[in-house]
Amino acid sequence: MKLRVSCHLRFQVLEASVLILMLRPYKGCQQWINREIYTIKPAMPIIESTDSYGNSCQRLVAPVGDFSIYTSAEVMVTDSIDVAPGAYFVEIQHLPDKVLPFLLPSRYCESDRFGDLAREITVDALPGYDQVSKINNWVRDSIQYVPGSSDYPLSAVEVHLQGHGVCRDLAQMAIALCRSISIPARLVVGYLHNLQPMDLHAWFEAYIGDRWYTFDPTQSDLQGGRVNIAFGRDAADVSIFHQFGSGCLLNSMDVRVDLLDN
Amino acid sequence: MKLRVSCHLRFQVLEASVLILMLRPYKGCQQWINREIYTIKPAMPIIESTDSYGNSCQRLVAPVGDFSIYTSAEVMVTDSIDVAPGAYFVEIQHLPDKVLPFLLPSRYCESDRFGDLAREITVDALPGYDQVSKINNWVRDSIQYVPGSSDYPLSAVEVHLQGHGVCRDLAQMAIALCRSISIPARLVVGYLHNLQPMDLHAWFEAYIGDRWYTFDPTQSDLQGGRVNIAFGRDAADVSIFHQFGSGCLLNSMDVRVDLLDN
Amino acid sequence: MKLRVSCHLRFQVLEASVLILMLRPYKGCQQWINREIYTIKPAMPIIESTDSYGNSCQRLVAPVGDFSIYTSAEVMVTDSIDVAPGAYFVEIQHLPDKVLPFLLPSRYCESDRFGDLAREITVDALPGYDQVSKINNWVRDSIQYVPGSSDYPLSAVEVHLQGHGVCRDLAQMAIALCRSISIPARLVVGYLHNLQPMDLHAWFEAYIGDRWYTFDPTQSDLQGGRVNIAFGRDAADVSIFHQFGSGCLLNSMDVRVDLLDN
Amino acid sequence: MKLRVSCHLRFQVLEASVLILMLRPYKGCQQWINREIYTIKPAMPIIESTDSYGNSCQRLVAPVGDFSIYTSAEVMVTDSIDVAPGAYFVEIQHLPDKVLPFLLPSRYCESDRFGDLAREITVDALPGYDQVSKINNWVRDSIQYVPGSSDYPLSAVEVHLQGHGVCRDLAQMAIALCRSISIPARLVVGYLHNLQPMDLHAWFEAYIGDRWYTFDPTQSDLQGGRVNIAFGRDAADVSIFHQFGSGCLLNSMDVRVDLLDN
Repeated sequence: MKLRVSCHLRFQVLEASVLILMLRPYKGCQQWINREIYTIKPAMPIIESTDSYGNSCQRLVAPVGDFSIYTSAEVMVTDSIDVAPGAYFVEIQHLPDKVLPFLLPSRYCESDRFGDLAREITVDALPGYDQVSKINNWVRDSIQYVPGSSDYPLSAVEVHLQGHGVCRDLAQMAIALCRSISIPARLVVGYLHNLQPMDLHAWFEAYIGDRWYTFDPTQSDLQGGRVNIAFGRDAADVSIFHQFGSGCLLNSMDVRVDLLDN
Repeated sequence: MKLRVSCHLRFQVLEASVLILMLRPYKGCQQWINREIYTIKPAMPIIESTDSYGNSCQRLVAPVGDFSIYTSAEVMVTDSIDVAPGAYFVEIQHLPDKVLPFLLPSRYCESDRFGDLAREITVDALPGYDQVSKINNWVRDSIQYVPGSSDYPLSAVEVHLQGHGVCRDLAQMAIALCRSISIPARLVVGYLHNLQPMDLHAWFEAYIGDRWYTFDPTQSDLQGGRVNIAFGRDAADVSIFHQFGSGCLLNSMDVRVDLLDN
Repeated sequence: MKLRVSCHLRFQVLEASVLILMLRPYKGCQQWINREIYTIKPAMPIIESTDSYGNSCQRLVAPVGDFSIYTSAEVMVTDSIDVAPGAYFVEIQHLPDKVLPFLLPSRYCESDRFGDLAREITVDALPGYDQVSKINNWVRDSIQYVPGSSDYPLSAVEVHLQGHGVCRDLAQMAIALCRSISIPARLVVGYLHNLQPMDLHAWFEAYIGDRWYTFDPTQSDLQGGRVNIAFGRDAADVSIFHQFGSGCLLNSMDVRVDLLDN
Repeated sequence: MKLRVSCHLRFQVLEASVLILMLRPYKGCQQWINREIYTIKPAMPIIESTDSYGNSCQRLVAPVGDFSIYTSAEVMVTDSIDVAPGAYFVEIQHLPDKVLPFLLPSRYCESDRFGDLAREITVDALPGYDQVSKINNWVRDSIQYVPGSSDYPLSAVEVHLQGHGVCRDLAQMAIALCRSISIPARLVVGYLHNLQPMDLHAWFEAYIGDRWYTFDPTQSDLQGGRVNIAFGRDAADVSIFHQFGSGCLLNSMDVRVDLLDN
């Protein structure tokens, strides 16, 4: 299907502040960016680079005053998401080198602390896809999804204690559980068609069989219509905007996803 | 200045053919892509990846029949190009690791065969920027620039014998000469505002002082208004479209560069 | 100076276990590996790869029974460590792309939680080297260095609460503080000549001026004689041996550093 | 089998000269380096880095006078080389991204000039492994292998005209032919047990099925006992020593390969 996605951020900048943005849709993962707009007002020098995961990052110094970022894209994406019950667990010694970082604990996914819980959740599951399904279902059932409930990232340990979280929190809880039983998992930030309420979204992928598969603990169905913006170990790696200091106030954020044709 | 650039390629495909395209403007080098369109007709699966130089590549199988690619972008670029007479030669042992590949001979830049000529051309020059200036001037004076004169890439040795060439040939001749005296040099493919006749263009950059500097042996003035598409060792690395087999006929190619505002 | 370093690990393996090792001295950072031995008994297939930081990693499946790893090297290293009081703070927008990951919070360095403390510690310091010096001194004075006191990694938040730690803990506490005031910092694992008691060691580096500088909160003097094994964001990235599961018991670990000549 | 390999280079340096060396055995490709020595006399600062293919490179400035490099290693390698008659041709659109550079023409492998010859040689072959076998045999039969016959690298076009060459020349001829029919191919430089006469050796690998396979047009049997030093597009990328300028005279080169145990 063809989607038009957009995100409009408006800030009030009290003190000149460095921002690192990740707002370009990802190039190179089964989605085709047909048209893209990226406007920053006022205009200013922007330094663009690609991180070790292939995400596009923009660095800039936001000047004092009103500051806005508008990004939009027309993207061809798949209508449905591949599922693969029974896909096998990949022994660590056979994982591609590039997948290894997604096996390690990271800032918000303390996988070194969840081995017992993960083994309990997956006790009856076949190694591989079915383990991840059990984890995904467990997170959906155990951690209440409350959109808009947290402003700054919590770690999996904190989310587990708290019992509720935003999409990112649920995804990171699931990632920590997967890694703790040696299944590589990564966070995806992007757009999802028909998300309720509309917002930027986060879900996760697990490496099983011979590729990455998509899971989303916040949604009962694994719908298609997903536009990937960035991949990373967790929200420390992939933040749509990362502010250094506290000089920037986000006044509004307007996210849209429209179906152009199917 | 803000430019709108576009390239429209129309092919007749006689036999299903693999193409590797490099047509997205480069992200991350002092140009800001504000708006971008990339349309391929008929629509088809496209595999996108980033090469070791940071260029974005698209792979696809063009089906039999009419086939077209339209790409356009609005880009903020610098009005003028930095020059630095006197910028010093960087000793090889002090070059950044990533610059080393641009010191070696490559398919169309047989720098291992031009040491004597390069030393002769630069005999009176200070090491560094001034050597590259001498080489650039020598190429402009010695190799006649004949736009549209060659359909497939010639190497520097061949261009030297022939005495004339297209923009890419002159750039590659200069690159071979620079590398033969241990100055890293790379090919740039892109758009140039006010190029006569309008077409995609190629020029080169040399690593001197502590950065890459732009040179263009086809132009008497080093004007700004350049939109970079891709960087590489030579035309083997950076081809706006690389066809495997001979099943694709290019029927037309329409390139435009318009000034939006200054 | 020329050092001979060695590390001998003996395990009892109760259950076949995957290990990821990082035990080769680092290539490419002002140290020259003149001679190297790396013996794993019993012999088995080993998969070697290089991670995104340039560290060499070995993956293997340790079979049930006695299992040992012996690694040794003769390395030329610098006698003294560069210090640079007054070296300037690098604005985030000017940092090299490859340095950016070391600015973000990571598993054991929750830099997003230490801004207030870091600003308090560095209140009188000049931006840059002097801030890191204050942080390094503060960690040395505030967190008691107790070699051998922890078996598994604690995070900076946990170490701060606990008030004592091993070398890795102090280094990670300092890293978290540096990053929280936008100074990139990374963990180094390696050997240190004359370390008391002898063991593998961990310290940190901060990016200031235009390069990485070494700091060591466990030592009152910043002696030379350091052999770098691996660099990373924290102990999640650089673990000399990372065991998946609990089937491997470390029976003994023997570390030596001898001065060969000066 | 376990081999001890060594290479001893002695130079007379007339003028201080930059050298880039590639003499460490490759880490990470089905060979295990158990023991390694790398001695450069006189001792001097050496800058070590890893290129985009994973090869380890050493840069140094050789001072005037006697200069020597001694490198040796004990390496576990496979006794026999995998062959796979019938392994399938991988469509370009399905090749891993990292394999793409090995499809393009390079300095000494002008694959853009050999399409007709390659199609003629492989006219009856099944796409894939069998095509490469035909090419390998054709090179063995058509280009006379004359060890020691050339001092500087010739390109495939030149070798084809000349009709004879060293191991590197035959490998590059085969590489050019493979790439011209869209099979990725790369040069390998290394040691070969029982090579007659003993010297450093070069052969090639082609990407077929889902991996790289080894071929050697200079040898009638595809024996094992190969120690890989470096991989690249051709001899421009992988030169065991690359001299800038002409100030270094190679006085002697002593290469040994001994079987330690099987």
